[in-house]
Amino acid sequence: MATVTIIGAGMMGSGICRPVRDNGHEVRLVGTPLDRDIIDEARRTGWHITLKRRLPEGVSYYQIEEVSTALAGADLVICGVSSFGLEWFAEAILPVLLLDVPVLSVTKGLLGQADGALMTYPHYLENRLPESKRGRILFNAIGGPCTSYELMDRHQTLVYFCGRDAACLAWLQSLLTTDYYHITISTDIVGVEVCVALKNAYAVGVSMAIGMAERIAGPDAYMYNPQAALFGQSLREMTRLVRLLGGDSDLVAGIPGAGDLYVTIFGGRTRRLGYLLGKGVTYQEAREQLQGVTLESVVIITRVAAALRARAIAGAVDAADFPLLMFLDRVINEGALAEIPWRDFR
Amino acid sequence: MATVTIIGAGMMGSGICRPVRDNGHEVRLVGTPLDRDIIDEARRTGWHITLKRRLPEGVSYYQIEEVSTALAGADLVICGVSSFGLEWFAEAILPVLLLDVPVLSVTKGLLGQADGALMTYPHYLENRLPESKRGRILFNAIGGPCTSYELMDRHQTLVYFCGRDAACLAWLQSLLTTDYYHITISTDIVGVEVCVALKNAYAVGVSMAIGMAERIAGPDAYMYNPQAALFGQSLREMTRLVRLLGGDSDLVAGIPGAGDLYVTIFGGRTRRLGYLLGKGVTYQEAREQLQGVTLESVVIITRVAAALRARAIAGAVDAADFPLLMFLDRVINEGALAEIPWRDFR
Repeated sequence: MATVTIIGAGMMGSGICRPVRDNGHEVRLVGTPLDRDIIDEARRTGWHITLKRRLPEGVSYYQIEEVSTALAGADLVICGVSSFGLEWFAEAILPVLLLDVPVLSVTKGLLGQADGALMTYPHYLENRLPESKRGRILFNAIGGPCTSYELMDRHQTLVYFCGRDAACLAWLQSLLTTDYYHITISTDIVGVEVCVALKNAYAVGVSMAIGMAERIAGPDAYMYNPQAALFGQSLREMTRLVRLLGGDSDLVAGIPGAGDLYVTIFGGRTRRLGYLLGKGVTYQEAREQLQGVTLESVVIITRVAAALRARAIAGAVDAADFPLLMFLDRVINEGALAEIPWRDFR
Repeated sequence: MATVTIIGAGMMGSGICRPVRDNGHEVRLVGTPLDRDIIDEARRTGWHITLKRRLPEGVSYYQIEEVSTALAGADLVICGVSSFGLEWFAEAILPVLLLDVPVLSVTKGLLGQADGALMTYPHYLENRLPESKRGRILFNAIGGPCTSYELMDRHQTLVYFCGRDAACLAWLQSLLTTDYYHITISTDIVGVEVCVALKNAYAVGVSMAIGMAERIAGPDAYMYNPQAALFGQSLREMTRLVRLLGGDSDLVAGIPGAGDLYVTIFGGRTRRLGYLLGKGVTYQEAREQLQGVTLESVVIITRVAAALRARAIAGAVDAADFPLLMFLDRVINEGALAEIPWRDFR
């Protein structure tokens, strides 16, 4: 039995309690400063107020002030924050992590840099480690189609764990595999993480076709050719991007790319955003309808488009190879209406 | 303006009338011996009895006895039969085709051979040409996500045309491209056609998760992780198969592979078959519920599994690299229940 400390008690940080507890490990769930109410309620009743499910028996709950207690003696730390919590994790948590205890992260995204480089989160966290800890903490990450609700409900799920160290990955796999949570391991951090990030961007694009169908032909329209076309075009561009950044593009035609894109189109706010844009509203209007929330998908579209533009200026890529992504950027950042540029996909 | 003769007045043969007529070409639609009622009614009223739509103005209709008249002076022949009509097309139509008039085919499938070879339909038709015509008729084919209803309704659609000859493909592209029908051309016949065929097989697999979700959690269940996992696994195996047969596997993460698989999951009898199997009935029971019809998807599962077994015996492949396809074969051909082998996908 291992001791697993999860930092971040949001949807996915909490969802992953399920396989960890099912395997009999000790679970310590630590809320971020934004998770106070979640932890309070869970402590009192075992109920997760946003997942709207009872958390597994035997989980211990900690507020952020108790993080050192929660980390003492842990064999594994799971970083359960969203990309908007990454900077906080780097600032507040990296300094208190213990040596030689690996990290497994559910955070999805990429960081852009002025020269058009895009950095994965495991690489970023590695770079942000205090000098004294460099090389002593392994950062791993999870990719693939897995919604937190469904993990909590023990639906059959295939995921990838990626990281530098194959032995560490094999250990993580043995720790978390259950009869419903199936883990493939890969040392291709770039390949997996670029898929994980991009699927949010492209899910906006595919979902536009759902709104467009309703706008053109009404709510009961049978209209799937356009969705399917955008799905195929998304994977085509994802393949190019993964290759450009040095990952194995076979991951696109698999669980981390196509699988994760597929599940993202079926629900959640990213689908809702694409749907609204496809119905013909501007991004500003859609954002208001989504209560002003900025989605991870919007951030990734913006960052990747900026990176491609920077690289295009340097002559390193042709932005015309990414017509769907550049179109999404125009819709998000220039207020363009979602008139899908079908001709550019030929 | 060109003259286009379509042979086969079923769903897709008729659906493709739309872009051809929209571009102002003369269209001659010839029914097979199975299409008599379709042609009779279309001639009388312009109504297509199975597409349940009015055919475009200006199409001329021919019964099979009039095929020579319909072929005289044609610039292009479109083969509009399903894979069950292919043998008929080879027997009855190849001998009456005129020299130097290319063929464009909508037929989806692969032919298996005892040694584990799998042959595309364009190659098969080429081989079946009478000696005197060899090399004088170019066989091209269409792949990608395009349902006949939606083509008839002018929904935005992306397809691939494949064939040996780039100049002929460019001509076909110029002939059929409209502002809703977008054509990419490729000389990779094997790559495109293997995707086209396999998507029917794997759509059964993904659709099983839909029936399974309903069986486990009821009709309103939110359960997409398993579908997404099977979708990703399908593309993983399709990538391996396309490579094995010598095609460009990039087509899998694109329009002909992922795009076409996606659209196939959203409707039609292949989805229905997978759904029924996922609900827990045997293939025999599912087949009865489908009025005893044998689907193209079933044929392709059987042929590809047989080919893989033959190659595995020769030591050329490991059937364990195709766990989903081999599982589908057990369900179809050995009466196994659809208990999805999740562990094998790790």
